[in-house]
Amino acid sequence: MSRPTLGIVGVGKIARDQHLPSIAETGSFELAALVSPHGTGLEGDGPEGVPTFRSQEEMLAALPRLDAVALCTPPSVRHGLAAAALAAGKHVLVEKPPAATVSELHDLVAVAARNRRVLFTAWHSQFNPAVEAARERLAGAAIRAVRIDWKEDVRRWHPGQEWIWQPGGFGVFDPGINALSILTRIMPAPLFVREAELLVPENRETPIAVTMTLRAAAGAPVGPVSVEFDFRQEGEQTWTIAVELEDGRRLELTHGGTRLFVDGTPVLSEPDSEYRRIYRRFRRLIDEGTSDVDAAPLHLVADAWSVGRRRTTAAFHW
Amino acid sequence: MSRPTLGIVGVGKIARDQHLPSIAETGSFELAALVSPHGTGLEGDGPEGVPTFRSQEEMLAALPRLDAVALCTPPSVRHGLAAAALAAGKHVLVEKPPAATVSELHDLVAVAARNRRVLFTAWHSQFNPAVEAARERLAGAAIRAVRIDWKEDVRRWHPGQEWIWQPGGFGVFDPGINALSILTRIMPAPLFVREAELLVPENRETPIAVTMTLRAAAGAPVGPVSVEFDFRQEGEQTWTIAVELEDGRRLELTHGGTRLFVDGTPVLSEPDSEYRRIYRRFRRLIDEGTSDVDAAPLHLVADAWSVGRRRTTAAFHW
Repeated sequence: MSRPTLGIVGVGKIARDQHLPSIAETGSFELAALVSPHGTGLEGDGPEGVPTFRSQEEMLAALPRLDAVALCTPPSVRHGLAAAALAAGKHVLVEKPPAATVSELHDLVAVAARNRRVLFTAWHSQFNPAVEAARERLAGAAIRAVRIDWKEDVRRWHPGQEWIWQPGGFGVFDPGINALSILTRIMPAPLFVREAELLVPENRETPIAVTMTLRAAAGAPVGPVSVEFDFRQEGEQTWTIAVELEDGRRLELTHGGTRLFVDGTPVLSEPDSEYRRIYRRFRRLIDEGTSDVDAAPLHLVADAWSVGRRRTTAAFHW
Repeated sequence: MSRPTLGIVGVGKIARDQHLPSIAETGSFELAALVSPHGTGLEGDGPEGVPTFRSQEEMLAALPRLDAVALCTPPSVRHGLAAAALAAGKHVLVEKPPAATVSELHDLVAVAARNRRVLFTAWHSQFNPAVEAARERLAGAAIRAVRIDWKEDVRRWHPGQEWIWQPGGFGVFDPGINALSILTRIMPAPLFVREAELLVPENRETPIAVTMTLRAAAGAPVGPVSVEFDFRQEGEQTWTIAVELEDGRRLELTHGGTRLFVDGTPVLSEPDSEYRRIYRRFRRLIDEGTSDVDAAPLHLVADAWSVGRRRTTAAFHW
């Protein structure tokens, strides 16, 4: 089939830094439209010759033969946009997290099936070669324990993003869900939230720090998973998943899952290829007519809310 | 096929009041075992000639040809028991809520499929004839608004049940999820939590009262759904779902969904048939080899936790 045409909805930082270059480099899609309610923020209003629209609705009306849509908006509006695009016959790639709630995500699965279109939940952290290498090494392994430290400075990475503190804004789960998306990808058995503590600033609605213990079902060869998410990390930033095996070996994914160490020795490091892999995969899914929906990371966040203890901590000011 | 044999795991109030009489009355199953770690609390240790075990594991070992299991334990242990029973080749009926978390429920769906066994999430409130009658009347209707009032006295209906206040214990969502199971059954379109406020006693971990607004997707013929769950209701108890149609008519399900009124006139009232219908349905599902899993009510509760504002209220003491 000829290259599918694609419209990007939501031209913020992630679209400019990752989606646009990856579409250009891979050649998997023909960029056919941009949607941005307040302008694209791109010089000369975007890549040459690519029409820009104020809403997805306008784009869908103007380009009835468009094949696919990539949603890069904030999570709260993704469900409505994705459902409308699928209903209009478009294949849909959704940035992470794919929806604001579990009900929304499962509804999109139903809408995609009903319209026989491809839905692809693009958990970008899963697309690092180091993550795939870790998954292969853990496939038959007995795992004694896992430790996740995902600690970053919210002021540095999310400056002024008020939505992150509002109801449904995820708080520290916004970066933390990337760690969970790697975890559920590399572990040989499903995991369940057994305990969680959510630390919420007294003037905010979402957690600034979370500790959790996850466990596999009885009988699975996977020991406890200890999780620490923290938005208050100054100085060095930490995005590490350390896996201790029963045979004494130790795997570490560092730098957000881009580097793999085995017993302290680096075995793989290939940063920044995530989004090229994502667009190649989206193209393959469309060619094959298959959806790829991973609901597990969003389920785990919902579960942490449901079974977690909530504690109040000091007010947060930017 | 001859009558399947069934073991009941967890012989508490709901098993004694509903499951045992319904199994006897319908004749759909042959009661083959009871499991209760602290004894069954039944006179003469249970129905005549039915063996009693201290754990499901003991029962499965002693009765390898058992066909099915009904889980009536508290929610926190349901996932482990259901997964073990399915893996042992048993069909499984789970009381509401079918699991403590969304991840657990979706795992059970996968385990049931892998073992080619029937999983049945028995949301008992869905099995009232009045609920089915409401669903039929609403199938093609345009709905202006829905109001749910589910208000009961926790001291009267859950005396001393400490688990309900502990993390993962559901709080007022424990009765409230019955209302949500009716709502998702009778509405002609999926609903999503748009706003929620969870009122949690300062000395507890789960809500004593919840207000929510649910909405359907844009374009669906369903107006807003206002929800009030309250555990502090003294005097008259209220379990009502009122549906206002665009044509001015008004449907009301009262008494927990057992009575249906149209424009104030009673049209159906048949209490206490829920569990007989449940066991007839479980038998039919086994005969047909089909699972029946409704995840929507549990999703909505998880969503309320995820997007809700949490407020602290006065301490609760029994």
